[in-house]
Amino acid sequence: MSTDKNMLVFSGTANPALAEKIAKYMGVELGNVKLSKFANGEIYARYLQSVRGRDVYIIQSVAGNVNDALMELLIMIDAAKRASAKSICAVISHYGYSRQDKKSAAREPITAKLVANLLEVAGVDRIIAVDLHQGQIQGFFNIPVNHLTAMSIFADYFKAQNLPNLVVVSPDTGRARAAQKFCDIMGSGLAIMSKSRPAHNKAEVTTLIGDVEGKDCVLNDDMIDTAGTVVTACKLLKDRGAASIHVCATHGLLSGPAFDRIESCDAIDEVVVTDTVYVPEEKLVGKIKVVTVAPLLARAITRVEYDGSVSDLFDPEFAL
Amino acid sequence: MSTDKNMLVFSGTANPALAEKIAKYMGVELGNVKLSKFANGEIYARYLQSVRGRDVYIIQSVAGNVNDALMELLIMIDAAKRASAKSICAVISHYGYSRQDKKSAAREPITAKLVANLLEVAGVDRIIAVDLHQGQIQGFFNIPVNHLTAMSIFADYFKAQNLPNLVVVSPDTGRARAAQKFCDIMGSGLAIMSKSRPAHNKAEVTTLIGDVEGKDCVLNDDMIDTAGTVVTACKLLKDRGAASIHVCATHGLLSGPAFDRIESCDAIDEVVVTDTVYVPEEKLVGKIKVVTVAPLLARAITRVEYDGSVSDLFDPEFAL
Amino acid sequence: MSTDKNMLVFSGTANPALAEKIAKYMGVELGNVKLSKFANGEIYARYLQSVRGRDVYIIQSVAGNVNDALMELLIMIDAAKRASAKSICAVISHYGYSRQDKKSAAREPITAKLVANLLEVAGVDRIIAVDLHQGQIQGFFNIPVNHLTAMSIFADYFKAQNLPNLVVVSPDTGRARAAQKFCDIMGSGLAIMSKSRPAHNKAEVTTLIGDVEGKDCVLNDDMIDTAGTVVTACKLLKDRGAASIHVCATHGLLSGPAFDRIESCDAIDEVVVTDTVYVPEEKLVGKIKVVTVAPLLARAITRVEYDGSVSDLFDPEFAL
Amino acid sequence: MSTDKNMLVFSGTANPALAEKIAKYMGVELGNVKLSKFANGEIYARYLQSVRGRDVYIIQSVAGNVNDALMELLIMIDAAKRASAKSICAVISHYGYSRQDKKSAAREPITAKLVANLLEVAGVDRIIAVDLHQGQIQGFFNIPVNHLTAMSIFADYFKAQNLPNLVVVSPDTGRARAAQKFCDIMGSGLAIMSKSRPAHNKAEVTTLIGDVEGKDCVLNDDMIDTAGTVVTACKLLKDRGAASIHVCATHGLLSGPAFDRIESCDAIDEVVVTDTVYVPEEKLVGKIKVVTVAPLLARAITRVEYDGSVSDLFDPEFAL
Amino acid sequence: MSTDKNMLVFSGTANPALAEKIAKYMGVELGNVKLSKFANGEIYARYLQSVRGRDVYIIQSVAGNVNDALMELLIMIDAAKRASAKSICAVISHYGYSRQDKKSAAREPITAKLVANLLEVAGVDRIIAVDLHQGQIQGFFNIPVNHLTAMSIFADYFKAQNLPNLVVVSPDTGRARAAQKFCDIMGSGLAIMSKSRPAHNKAEVTTLIGDVEGKDCVLNDDMIDTAGTVVTACKLLKDRGAASIHVCATHGLLSGPAFDRIESCDAIDEVVVTDTVYVPEEKLVGKIKVVTVAPLLARAITRVEYDGSVSDLFDPEFAL
Amino acid sequence: MSTDKNMLVFSGTANPALAEKIAKYMGVELGNVKLSKFANGEIYARYLQSVRGRDVYIIQSVAGNVNDALMELLIMIDAAKRASAKSICAVISHYGYSRQDKKSAAREPITAKLVANLLEVAGVDRIIAVDLHQGQIQGFFNIPVNHLTAMSIFADYFKAQNLPNLVVVSPDTGRARAAQKFCDIMGSGLAIMSKSRPAHNKAEVTTLIGDVEGKDCVLNDDMIDTAGTVVTACKLLKDRGAASIHVCATHGLLSGPAFDRIESCDAIDEVVVTDTVYVPEEKLVGKIKVVTVAPLLARAITRVEYDGSVSDLFDPEFAL
Repeated sequence: MSTDKNMLVFSGTANPALAEKIAKYMGVELGNVKLSKFANGEIYARYLQSVRGRDVYIIQSVAGNVNDALMELLIMIDAAKRASAKSICAVISHYGYSRQDKKSAAREPITAKLVANLLEVAGVDRIIAVDLHQGQIQGFFNIPVNHLTAMSIFADYFKAQNLPNLVVVSPDTGRARAAQKFCDIMGSGLAIMSKSRPAHNKAEVTTLIGDVEGKDCVLNDDMIDTAGTVVTACKLLKDRGAASIHVCATHGLLSGPAFDRIESCDAIDEVVVTDTVYVPEEKLVGKIKVVTVAPLLARAITRVEYDGSVSDLFDPEFAL
Repeated sequence: MSTDKNMLVFSGTANPALAEKIAKYMGVELGNVKLSKFANGEIYARYLQSVRGRDVYIIQSVAGNVNDALMELLIMIDAAKRASAKSICAVISHYGYSRQDKKSAAREPITAKLVANLLEVAGVDRIIAVDLHQGQIQGFFNIPVNHLTAMSIFADYFKAQNLPNLVVVSPDTGRARAAQKFCDIMGSGLAIMSKSRPAHNKAEVTTLIGDVEGKDCVLNDDMIDTAGTVVTACKLLKDRGAASIHVCATHGLLSGPAFDRIESCDAIDEVVVTDTVYVPEEKLVGKIKVVTVAPLLARAITRVEYDGSVSDLFDPEFAL
Repeated sequence: MSTDKNMLVFSGTANPALAEKIAKYMGVELGNVKLSKFANGEIYARYLQSVRGRDVYIIQSVAGNVNDALMELLIMIDAAKRASAKSICAVISHYGYSRQDKKSAAREPITAKLVANLLEVAGVDRIIAVDLHQGQIQGFFNIPVNHLTAMSIFADYFKAQNLPNLVVVSPDTGRARAAQKFCDIMGSGLAIMSKSRPAHNKAEVTTLIGDVEGKDCVLNDDMIDTAGTVVTACKLLKDRGAASIHVCATHGLLSGPAFDRIESCDAIDEVVVTDTVYVPEEKLVGKIKVVTVAPLLARAITRVEYDGSVSDLFDPEFAL
Repeated sequence: MSTDKNMLVFSGTANPALAEKIAKYMGVELGNVKLSKFANGEIYARYLQSVRGRDVYIIQSVAGNVNDALMELLIMIDAAKRASAKSICAVISHYGYSRQDKKSAAREPITAKLVANLLEVAGVDRIIAVDLHQGQIQGFFNIPVNHLTAMSIFADYFKAQNLPNLVVVSPDTGRARAAQKFCDIMGSGLAIMSKSRPAHNKAEVTTLIGDVEGKDCVLNDDMIDTAGTVVTACKLLKDRGAASIHVCATHGLLSGPAFDRIESCDAIDEVVVTDTVYVPEEKLVGKIKVVTVAPLLARAITRVEYDGSVSDLFDPEFAL
Repeated sequence: MSTDKNMLVFSGTANPALAEKIAKYMGVELGNVKLSKFANGEIYARYLQSVRGRDVYIIQSVAGNVNDALMELLIMIDAAKRASAKSICAVISHYGYSRQDKKSAAREPITAKLVANLLEVAGVDRIIAVDLHQGQIQGFFNIPVNHLTAMSIFADYFKAQNLPNLVVVSPDTGRARAAQKFCDIMGSGLAIMSKSRPAHNKAEVTTLIGDVEGKDCVLNDDMIDTAGTVVTACKLLKDRGAASIHVCATHGLLSGPAFDRIESCDAIDEVVVTDTVYVPEEKLVGKIKVVTVAPLLARAITRVEYDGSVSDLFDPEFAL
Repeated sequence: MSTDKNMLVFSGTANPALAEKIAKYMGVELGNVKLSKFANGEIYARYLQSVRGRDVYIIQSVAGNVNDALMELLIMIDAAKRASAKSICAVISHYGYSRQDKKSAAREPITAKLVANLLEVAGVDRIIAVDLHQGQIQGFFNIPVNHLTAMSIFADYFKAQNLPNLVVVSPDTGRARAAQKFCDIMGSGLAIMSKSRPAHNKAEVTTLIGDVEGKDCVLNDDMIDTAGTVVTACKLLKDRGAASIHVCATHGLLSGPAFDRIESCDAIDEVVVTDTVYVPEEKLVGKIKVVTVAPLLARAITRVEYDGSVSDLFDPEFAL
C-alpha cells in the first residue's frame, strides 16, 4: 500500500508553520482537523477525515500557552483513539515542563513525568521528541521514544562560519555533559560556567572554569527562556576577553524580557535557535536567527512509518 | 486524633474566594502551598508544609483559564502523591469540559472522560463535584465520586420570594429531566423549550412546549456560558406572556458577551448563579446574583473525612 | 486480502437469529464455536476453528438471561484473546444494565460502567452498540465505541404509513432530547410526558406537556421492559384525544407482563421494536411488530473491518 | 476502636444461611443491603447503611445460578467501592468456574482466571476462599488470597466414626496429591483411581491403583457435581471388596441427577459435604450429610480484620 | 511478504545451542544482539540490527544462573519494546520458579506468578513454553501462552525401544495426572509413588501404589533437579522387582549432586532429558541422554508467525 | 500505638551488616524472614512472623550478585503483599542498573526504568534510595521516592580534616552539577574533568578544566566501579600539581580490579565510600575507608513511619 493510505499527519495549533514545513519535506498534505476554542476556553477537536486504521502523527509544540498546547494534544490523541486510529504518534517538537524532571525540594511535583503519564493514558503509542532537557525523560515513558537532537544542525551552522578559535561554553554545570558532546562534534575546547552561592544569605555568583581569552565562544544550551542566564554568561565571557560570542539553543522560548535582554546586551553577537518553538517573524529583526528542524523530523516520521525499510537514511545526526 | 492532624485543605488559584469560604465554614485554615507560573507559562506547585500521611483536599474550579486550572490541579495532585499524602480528594466545584461527555459527531473526543482519566492517572483517590452536566460522568471514574447538587440552594432562594404562579422552564429537551426534579422540589409545573431544525438549510427554531402565560417562570440550567440560549429562551417566554422571568444556573461561566447580553435583555428579571465559578465582584452590579455553595461543600468534606460518624447531617439536598 | 482470511464473525447464544441475518447481509458464514452449559450452570466456550491473527467479531445481545448472556460474551472474549485473535470486537445489540448508568441514590453501583470494565479487562478491543440508554456510556470505555441508532429504521417505517398529523411523544423527560431528534428526522412536532410526585406520600402523577388532540402519536423510547410506562402513557394520550397511537422502541425486552399489557390496552394501535433483543415468533401475533437492525450492523462491521476504504457507504443514519 | 465501627459483613443471595451462621459465630449482625432482580433479570444492589471508611466483607457462594451469583458479587463490590468502603473482602465459599483453570484444548478460555480479573477490576482488595480446585488459583490474583481448607472438618468427622481399616481413595489422578495430604492427617493408606482410554474410539476405563479389600474407604474430592464420577468410583470400590464406602467433598454442587444417583447407588454408605454451596434442607433426608464451614470462615474473617493481634488462634487447619 | 522481513529470532545466553538448533530447523539466521555483563554484574543488551516493526522472538531458558537468565530476558524485552518491535514473543524453554506456583505455607511468595507479572510489565506480547510445572501457570498471564509438551518426544523414544512390559511410574502423587496421560499415549499401565509422613517427628516414607514386578518402568517427571527423588524412587522400584528402570523428564536441571547420584545409582538404567535446559556435553558420558525439543519449538514459532495459514501442521503433540 | 506493633524491618541478604546497623540506630530488632537458595539457584523467601496489617520495610542493596539481589527483593515484596502487609517500603541503599537510565545508542534498554516497573508490579508502595545516579530516576516511579544523599556525611568527614586549600573535582562533565553542589557545602572551588575523543579512530583524552595546582583535591563521584576513571583522573590531578588527592563516592562497588588499582596508584591518598554496598572487612586494610549511611536511613525510615509528626528532625542533609 502507498503512504497516502496508511499515514496521516496532523498539526496542533501551537506551531503550524513547523508542521507545514515537515509535511512539505515529506511530500504529503497535512490532514484535515477542526481545532477551536469555545468562549469559555475549552478546546474542541474533530478530525474532518477518517483516521480509522491509519497511523496518525500529531505535530505539536508544547509551548506558548503551554497548558493549552498540552491539552489540545491530549484531546487530539483521545479523538484519534476513539476514531479507531491504528497507532498514534505524538511528534513533540518542544516538550513543555521538561525542566521539572525531578524533585529538587521536598513536596515538589515531577511534572515532566506527569506529562508522560497524561500522554500515555490519553492513548499515545509513540513519541518523537527533540532535545529533551534530560535524556532520562525517555524513561518516563513505557512506550518507544525517538529522541532526536538538533546538535548537528548547529554544528553545520557554525562550521560554515569558520570561527578560527572556537571554544564551546556550557552555561552551567548541569549542561556540561551535553556541551562536551558538542565539543566532540566541533573538535573544539570546552569552558564551563558554574553558579555557586558562597553563603546562605549571599547572592549567587557565576564563575567561569576554563579559558576563553581571545576565543570565539559558542554558548550551547537546550533552551532560552527569559535569557537571564544567557546574558549573565555572555557578559562574563566578554569580561574574560572572548573574541566573539555566539549562542545556540534548540528551544527558543524567549519568554517575557528575553528579546529585549538579548538585543540590548552588547556582549552577544548572535543567538541561534530552531523552530521547535514558534517565534513570530516580526521578532526576527535583530540578533536572533532561526534554523529549522523540519527535515530532521520529516525523516524521523518517515523512518518510523516505514519500519526501517529505509535504513539507508540513517546518519549520525539521527539518534533514535 | 483531631482533625487538624489528619486533614489538610488546599486551594488552587482558580477560585480562592470559594476555598476561603469553605475553610471558614469548616473552621480550619487553608493549607500552605506555593503556586506560581514561570515566564513561559509553566505552572509550579510546592506544598510548604508536610502532607505526609494526611488526607489532602484540593479545591479547584476547572474554569476561567480552564486548561491552566486543570493542569494546576493535576500538578497539585502529583506533588501530594509524591509527598506521601495518605489520600487525595479533588473538590471540583466546576468540572470543565463536562459538556463533551459523548461523541455527537464522528471523530470527536470525549473530553469529559479524558479529564477523568487524567485525574486518576495523576493519583487522585476521590472526587467531590457539583452539578455535573450529566450524572453519568460519575461513571467515567473508577473511584468514588460524591456528586452534590445546588438545587436545594436555588429552591430556598425562590421559595423565599413567594412567587405566586411558579412554573419551572427547561431551556432545552436535554435539561428536561433535571428541570422536572426541580419542579418536584418546588411543587410547580413544567414547561420545556425544544430546539429543532425544520430542514437542513434552515435555521434552528426554538419552540415552547407547555403553557407559561401569566406565570412566574424560573428557567433552570446547569450552566450559563455565553448566555445566548438563556436570552433566546427568556425572550420567547416573554412573548408567550410570562409574568416574570427568573434564571438560575449552578455554574456562572459568563463567557464573552454573557454579561452584556443579560444586562441588555429586557425579558430577564434576574439571574442567579453560585460561586462554583469565580465571578468578579465588579460584575455583580446588575441582574446577576451569586449564592454560595460553600456550606454544601464544607459539609461534604467533613462527612467524607469522618467516615459517616456524622451521619445525622444527612439530608435530601446532599445526594452522595 | 479477502474478508474470509482476516475476519471471523461469531454469535453468542442470546440472539442467534440476529447473528444469522447479519452474516447473511454480509455474505459470510458464521464462525464455528462450541457454546454449552454444564449441569451446574457454568458456561463453556471453545472456538472450533483457528482465530489466530484474525479480526474476531462476537455478536451478542446482553438480554434474556442477562447475566448468562454477559458472562458468555466475556468468556468468548477471553478464549479469543488467549487463542491469539488479532482484534476482538463485541457487537452488543442490546447493552444490558445500561439504565444503571449513574448513582440515583447513595450507595448504588454504576453497573453500566462495571460492565464496561468487565468487557475491557476480558480483552475486548472495540464495541459496536445500538441505542445505548445514554450516549455517555460511550465514555465508560477507553476503547473505540461505534454507537449506532435504529432511529432511521423507525423513520422509514412510519414515513411509509403517511400518518397525516404526526406528533412524536417522549414518554418521560429523560427521553425528551432523543425524541426531539426523532422529530427533526420526521419533521413533526413534539409532546413530552412528565412524571412528578406532588408530595412524599402521594402517588406519582404523569402529566402531558404539549398538545396531541387529533394527532397521530408516535411514542418513542429506547426500550420497553414491562410496558407499564408505555401503557400509562398511551392511555393518557388517548384521554387527550389522540387520533392514533403508535409506539416504537429499539429494545423490546418485553419482560413479565409486557405482552399481556400491550395486547389488552385499547389505547395502543401498534408497537414496533427491533430485533436487538430476541422476541420469540409465537409472541408476534398481536400488535407487536419487529423490524431488523441486521443491515445496519452488517454495514457497521464491514466498515470497521475495511478501515474506511468503503467510506462512500457513509450516510447520516450511520452515526459512528 | 470496636469491631462494630470498623467492620461490616454482608451476604449475597446465593447462600444466606451460611452467612447467617458465620455472623452468629462472629457475634455480629449481618449488614443491611437491598438485593433484587428487575423483571428483565438485571440485578440491583444498594447498601442501606453507610459503608464509608469500613472494612466490608461480602459473603457469596458462586454457585446455584452461577452467573447471577457472580454478577451479584461484582455489583456489590462496585457499589461498596463507590460508597467509599475502606477495603472490600470477598468471602467466596465456592469459587465457580474453578475447574476451567487451564487450557485443556486449543482455543478454550481460562475462565477461573477471567473470574479473578473480573473481581479485581470491580474493586476487591482481598479474597477468602475454601478448597479451590487447584491452589494455583491463588496466583491468578495480584491481591492477598486466604485459602482455607475443610479437610480438618472432614478429618474430625471421620475420626469420630472410628473406622477400623481406613483407606483414603482419590477419585482420579488429578486429585491424588490432595488425597495423599488427607491420608497424612488421617494416618491412613491411599488408593487412586485412574481413568484411561485404551484407544481413540474406545470408552474410558477406570482402574484402581492400590488395595481396598476389606477396607473402610473414604473417597475424597473437592466437589461433587452430577455425581457420575463418584458413583462409578464407589461401584468399583465395592467390586474390589471395600468393607464400607464413605464420600466426602467440600463443595456439594449436586447438579441435575446427583441426588438420585447417590440415593440409588447401593455401593455408597454416606456422602458428606459442607455448606459452601447451599443444599435445600428437604434434600437432606437420605445419605447426604452437611457439615458447616461457618466457624472456619468466621475465624478467618476475624483474623483478617484484627491484623494478627489474635495470632494465638493459629492452628494447622487454618492455612492462610 | 517473506519471513525474513517480518520475523526476527534472537537468543539469550542461557542456552544458545538450543536457539541455534531451532533457527536451523526454521531455516533462518539468529538475529544479531550484543549481550554482555559489566564488571559489577549488571547485564547489558543491545540489538545490533533494526527490530522496528518486526515480530521478535526471544529464546531463553530461565535456568543455570536463573536470576541472570530471567533478568537478561526482561532486559531484552525492554530493549525490543523501546526499539519499536511490532510484537515480542518470549520462547521460554524452561520456566524457572515454576514450582513456586502457590502458597504451600503462610507468608510465602507465588514466584511463578511474580515472574509472569515481570514479563508482562517488561512488555512481552506472547509466551511459548514447554511443560510448565502446572498447566495453571498459563492462567498467570493475561496474554496468549502456547503451552507445548515434550511427551510425544519421549513416547517416540521409548516406543523405539520396544520395552515388552511397560509401566509408567509417577514419582509422586502431584505428578499422577500427567503420568496417566503418558500412559494413554504409551498404552501402558500406571504406578504411583506417594510420600507420606507417619507422624510429625518421623521421617517421610515413600510408598509405591500399584505393581511393577517384572515390569519395564518408565518414571516420568517434568524436571530433575538434584535427582534425590528420582534415586529414591528408582531404588524402591528395584526393590519391588522392576525388570528395567528408565527415567524421562523434560527439564534436566541436574543441579548439585545430580550427576553423581544418577551415575552411582545401580537401580537406574538410563535418564532421558531434553535440551530445554543446557547440559554441557562433557557431562553426557554416562546414563544421561538428551533429546531435542528444537523441532517442536521451531514449528510452534512458525505457526504463531503465520497465523494458522499452516494449519495442516497441526498434530496431537502440539498442544496450543 | 507503639512502633513495635505497626512497623517491621527486614533485611535481604545483600548487605545484612547495614540492615543490622540501621535497626540498632532505630532501636528495633530486624524481623524474622527465611531467605535461601535452592540447588538450582532459585531464591526462596518466607516471613517467619506475621506481617498482616504492618508497615514493612525491606532493606536491600541491589549490588554484589546484582540480579540475585534484585530478584530476592522482588520476591520479598511479593510475599509481603500476599501476606497482607499494610504497606511495603523498599529501602534500596544501592540501586543497581541506575547508570542505564536512558538510551545512549539505538536499540538499548532503559534498565533503570525497567527495574522501577518491576518493583511497582511486585507491589512496592514506596522507595527510599541513596544518591541515585540521576535524580530523574525518581520520576521513573509513580509512587513516592525519598531520595537521600550521603553528601553531608562526606562533608563532615572532610571538614574534620581541615584541608587548607580545598578544591572539589568532578571526574567527568556528567557529574559536574553534583560536584558543584558539594562545593557549595564545602565552600570550595570546582574543577572538572572532561573526556573527549579528538577523532573517531583516536583514543579518548581526559582534560582538566580549572586549576588544581597546590590544592587539596576531593574528587567526588556517585560510585566507584572498576576504579579506572578514578585512577586516570587522580593521575592527571597529580600531574597538574595537586597537593593531596582524596576521593569520595557513595557507592563502593569496587568491582574486578578496583582494589588493586586503588592500592597501586600513588596519586591517590585516600578513598572514602559508604556502606550502601557491602565491602568485606578484610579489604579495608589500605587506602579505602568506609563511612556509614545507617543513621541517615534510620532517620528516614522513622520519619516515613511517623508521618511527619517528627518534623523537627528535618535538616538540610535529609532531602526528601
